[in-house]
This record gives sequence, C-alpha cells and structure tokens, in this order.
Amino acid sequence: MKATILGAPRDIRLEDVPDPTLVAPTDALVRVTAACVCGSDLWPYRGINEVAEPTRIGHEFVGIVEEVGAEVRSLRPGDFVIAPFKYSDGTCPHCRVGIQTSCVRGGFWGGPDRDGVMVDGGQGEYVRVPLADGTLVATREVPGDDLVPSLLALSDVMGTGWHAAVAARVQEGDTVVVVGDGAVGLSGVLSAARMGAERVIAMSRHASRQAIAREFGATDVVEVRGEDAVAAVNELTDGVGADAVLECVGTDESMQTAIAVARPGATVGYVGVPHGIEYPVRDLFSRNVGIAGGVAPVRQYLPQLRDDVLSGAINPGLVFDLEVPLADVAEAYAAMDERRAVKSLVRP
Amino acid sequence: MKATILGAPRDIRLEDVPDPTLVAPTDALVRVTAACVCGSDLWPYRGINEVAEPTRIGHEFVGIVEEVGAEVRSLRPGDFVIAPFKYSDGTCPHCRVGIQTSCVRGGFWGGPDRDGVMVDGGQGEYVRVPLADGTLVATREVPGDDLVPSLLALSDVMGTGWHAAVAARVQEGDTVVVVGDGAVGLSGVLSAARMGAERVIAMSRHASRQAIAREFGATDVVEVRGEDAVAAVNELTDGVGADAVLECVGTDESMQTAIAVARPGATVGYVGVPHGIEYPVRDLFSRNVGIAGGVAPVRQYLPQLRDDVLSGAINPGLVFDLEVPLADVAEAYAAMDERRAVKSLVRP
Repeated sequence: MKATILGAPRDIRLEDVPDPTLVAPTDALVRVTAACVCGSDLWPYRGINEVAEPTRIGHEFVGIVEEVGAEVRSLRPGDFVIAPFKYSDGTCPHCRVGIQTSCVRGGFWGGPDRDGVMVDGGQGEYVRVPLADGTLVATREVPGDDLVPSLLALSDVMGTGWHAAVAARVQEGDTVVVVGDGAVGLSGVLSAARMGAERVIAMSRHASRQAIAREFGATDVVEVRGEDAVAAVNELTDGVGADAVLECVGTDESMQTAIAVARPGATVGYVGVPHGIEYPVRDLFSRNVGIAGGVAPVRQYLPQLRDDVLSGAINPGLVFDLEVPLADVAEAYAAMDERRAVKSLVRP
Repeated sequence: MKATILGAPRDIRLEDVPDPTLVAPTDALVRVTAACVCGSDLWPYRGINEVAEPTRIGHEFVGIVEEVGAEVRSLRPGDFVIAPFKYSDGTCPHCRVGIQTSCVRGGFWGGPDRDGVMVDGGQGEYVRVPLADGTLVATREVPGDDLVPSLLALSDVMGTGWHAAVAARVQEGDTVVVVGDGAVGLSGVLSAARMGAERVIAMSRHASRQAIAREFGATDVVEVRGEDAVAAVNELTDGVGADAVLECVGTDESMQTAIAVARPGATVGYVGVPHGIEYPVRDLFSRNVGIAGGVAPVRQYLPQLRDDVLSGAINPGLVFDLEVPLADVAEAYAAMDERRAVKSLVRP
C-alpha cells in the first residue's frame, strides 16, 4: 500500500510499504477514506522536532473497517469509523475516567506500541488499529461524503478545541475568550458557542480565519495582541475579564494573554503544546485563576461530537480549506507550512 | 482600647489605641470575643516579610455587633458575627460570582482602605468593619462558648481548606491526598471528608497533627516526604494516583509532591501562598493535571460552613491547641513560631 513518510525535514513522500495485517486479536484493519495534516505534524516537518530516521506520519483519519480480530466486539467490517489521535484500551483506570490519552496500554500512531511492534501512521491507504474496541468510534451507517470533513475533524482539532472548553469550564451564558485562530482555536470557538456561551471573543488577525470564527459563533474579534489584546477584552467586558478562556496556541505570549484576560476565579483551558511557558505564579494565586487542560482525550468526546455532526448541530469540517488526493500529500504539508491553508485534507 | 501591634520582627505587644468609631454608613463596630493567629502572621513576625513600621495585625475574629451605620441592612447590635480574612462589598462583579477576595472595594484588615483610611487589625478589643453587609456573616442566635473556636476557624483556616477541596473538585467517593498538616491542611482533610471522599490520605510527620487529621477523617497517613511520599501514594492507590489533591503549604517541594501524586485528569487545589514554585509545565500538559485555587474567598463558604458547625457536622475548632487571654498575645505568637502550638486562640 501507499503511505506517507517523513524522510527528513521538508521531505514528505508517498512510498510503498507492506500491507498491514492483523497482529493481535484486538486489532482492526481500517481502509482510510480521509486523513489530514495536523499543526503538530509541522514540527518535525520544519525540523523543530528532530527527525532521526524516515518515519510514518499522520494521526488523524477516518475510514471503513476491513477486518477485525477475534476479540473485537464493537466493530464489524463495513463500519465507518473515526480514529482519535491516540489509541487506547478503554478499560484501564485512566480510560475509565475519560483520560484515554493516559491509557496504560495506549500510544501514538506511527510509533512502536508497548511490545515494540510498529503502528501505522494515519496518512496512508490502510491502518492497523490496535485496541480497536477502545479506540475507534463507529457511525450507525456510512455517512454521506459531505459529512466526512466534519467527522474527520473530530479525530483531533474539534475534540481538542472541545477539551479546551471543557477544561475552561465554559457555562451557558458565559463570556469566553479564545486565544489562537488555527484549526484548534476555531474549533474552540465552535465548542464555546455550542456549550451556550453568550459571547465568544476570538483573537485573530487573519480575515479568512475571522470569517470561519464568525461562522462558528464568534460574536467579537480582537485583532491585536499582547497588552493591546488584554486592553481590548477589558473594554469589551467592562473591566471584569472573561468567564472562561481557551488557550489554543502554546506559546508564552499567548498563555500570558490568556491568563491576563481571565476574570478572578476563571479557568484557562489550554491545549496548545507548551513551548517556553512560565506561569505567573503569584498572579494566578492572587486572582484565583486556574490552569487546566493538556493533551486532549478526544476519545472521550467522540460519541457526543459524532452525534452533533450527524444531527447538523456542528460543522467543524469548515476548518478544511484545502483538499488533495493522497498522491499530493506533499502539497498538503507545504500549503499549511506556508500558511496558504488552515488545514489540509487528503483522500487516499 | 487594647490592640495587638507588630513593632518589629518578633516584637508583638498589646497597646492602647484610639477606640474605633463608625466612619462610613456601611460600617459596623464589632466587639471582638475571640481572635486567632494565622500562619501568615508569622511571616512578618519572623521578618520574612518586611516590617517597615509598627502595624496593627490579625485578620481572623468573631464578635458581637455593637453599632451599625445607617446603610447596614443585614446586621443589628447584639448579633454574633464571623469575619472573613478580607472585607468585601458583596455586590461587585467578583463578589457576585463568589470571589470576594477580588472585590473591587475590598481589602485586608490592618491596612488602609481604598480611601486611605486605616482599617483595624483583628487581634484587638474592637474592630471597625467596612462594608459590613458584604463582609460579616451572623448567626441567628449568640452561640454557646463551646462553638466559638469552630466558628472562629471559619474566618480563615477552615474556609481556606474548604477552598482547596472545592478547587480540587473533590467528589463523593474520591481518593484525596492532602499535602500539609498545618491548620489549613488539617481543615483540608476535614473538608474532603465532609464532601464525601472515601479515602483521605494526610501527609504528616507529627503525631499530634496526625491525631487531629484522623479525627477529621483521614483514613491514611503518609509520614515521608518528596519521592518517598509519591511512592507511598502510588502504593496506596495501585499506581493510579489521587482523584484530587489539596496543596496546603506553598513551597516548591510540597507543590511538586502534590502534582506528582495527582492521577491524570486530576486537579491540584492549592491555597498555600506560593514561595518559589515553578510548575512542571510539560508534565501538567501530558497528564492533564490542572492547578486551581489561590487566596480563599472564605466569605463565599461562610454561610454553609456556619450551618455545618452549628449542626455539629464539622468541628474545625479542634485545630486550636492553645488558648490565651489577649494580654498574652505575644505567647500566642511564640508558641506557634516555636511549633509548640498548631494554632493559637486569643480572648479579649
């Protein structure tokens, strides 16, 4: 089969690799019908994360179950399934409380599992899915093609934006600030609106992203950054600050802004992988501003968000503004790297 | 009247000061019937916080209302009242969501108010209470003397331990770890137990404090610190970690321990004033461990905790193991400073 390989920084290619087969009785074999490129895929692509050797890449995909192992109970060949960006057993103590990203037997796509067996990346024609019952979420029927982008978005960005909103404890009627206008930040806007926030203030300097934010429910857009952004939110909230803040970038500047716009007692829900963040310890203490979040356990939210997509309540697939065949996966990366695209979808 | 003055580090004396009178129509005049010494009073006492000039001290007291200003609606002379450790108006946006410690018109006892008028400290015979309606909480009847220590504990330590448990999101059935065996940590144990925690693991190396912790509902005691404490909690929780953690010290060591014993997805509720803490940013992210808490808005919890004391559901006054007349307030400080007492009560 064909699968995407990152050979070295900026060297993305489609290569022939061995067809996957079932290894464990808890495995499923999935034919990928759509996959996408994540902002975090750009770190090794850009050489920010080291690329020691050519590696399979991609961790967001949907597809059709082709074959299941003898112990798989919840899936059948022909099922349309959504994969979260980590696999997990669904039964360990951490999975049982909904933190599947900390599953004691779980792991990432494209790396070795706990027995050292390589797991496929998501940007290929097929994926062997370990712990299939715990990992995959199926739809009752195979959905129409128009729904595929929104269902695919649930594999990472939408579940991650949702996690930021859950962690920030967004309540109906809240004023919510979302820092970050990437696909995750935009998904955070959609999440806050879906949870009933009365006011959603999106921070964005890009017209195309502002348009998606508005579509997703943003009521206000702040185009400035840093202290100016804090002043703008203060102005918009009569000096009170936001009831909940979603930090969807991960830089120190964005985190400091997120904390500064939080009203006393509010929580900053963060999902941006932290790069160089130092928390203002005394300020957090004196204003009772909490910090919650982390690697999003999107598996926890998949059933609920799947139903929201199928009912038309949310349409997170709007974050995809480029679609290419798998053969052109290199362009999918280049477009995101050069900021020509918010998020790229690839079709095997 | 007599009031306690901190003249310089370790120089605590009772001095004659002018009798307070009503200044604003929202003031009340309270005759203090019991006050106490806080762990945080020891910082200037020990010279850790600078003492620039002689200053009135004390921020925990209960007493009888003597006189109220023309605009005070909820209190009458003769009422028994509990004062939280900060005064607040009860009407500003932050008070309305229960973060009275961030009140836009509030402040600390013993310092200047926002108009520059000095506010009395709590360790004296009388206190002029600003914003009395927002600040004081009365009982329906004057309580018996046996209940006074427990009601007095609500002015700070019990409300602070409760805040740690609220911030840590303690739920019925939880396994909770409490780091710190001072009066606040012990109150945290009581709070977690009152909230229905099934297991409360207290960290304490002192037999007398362990005894209070057990009385308050601790089911397990861990006597070691640092990595050994983390290993002990791991052992007690089958490697899972605690569902909720209360950090009631404020040092970097205690915070790192609190974070390390939290299970993935758990929240560390912290109320110890941070001294030299650096958060392990990547570890918090990867395990979805949240940090919440800060200066406890004890005013929010006073009505509920008052009722719990009056009904006998909780007896936080057990943290007082020394009681002296106000004339001996210097001994109240010395005993706590030398760790001869967990917490000292003084009676004017």
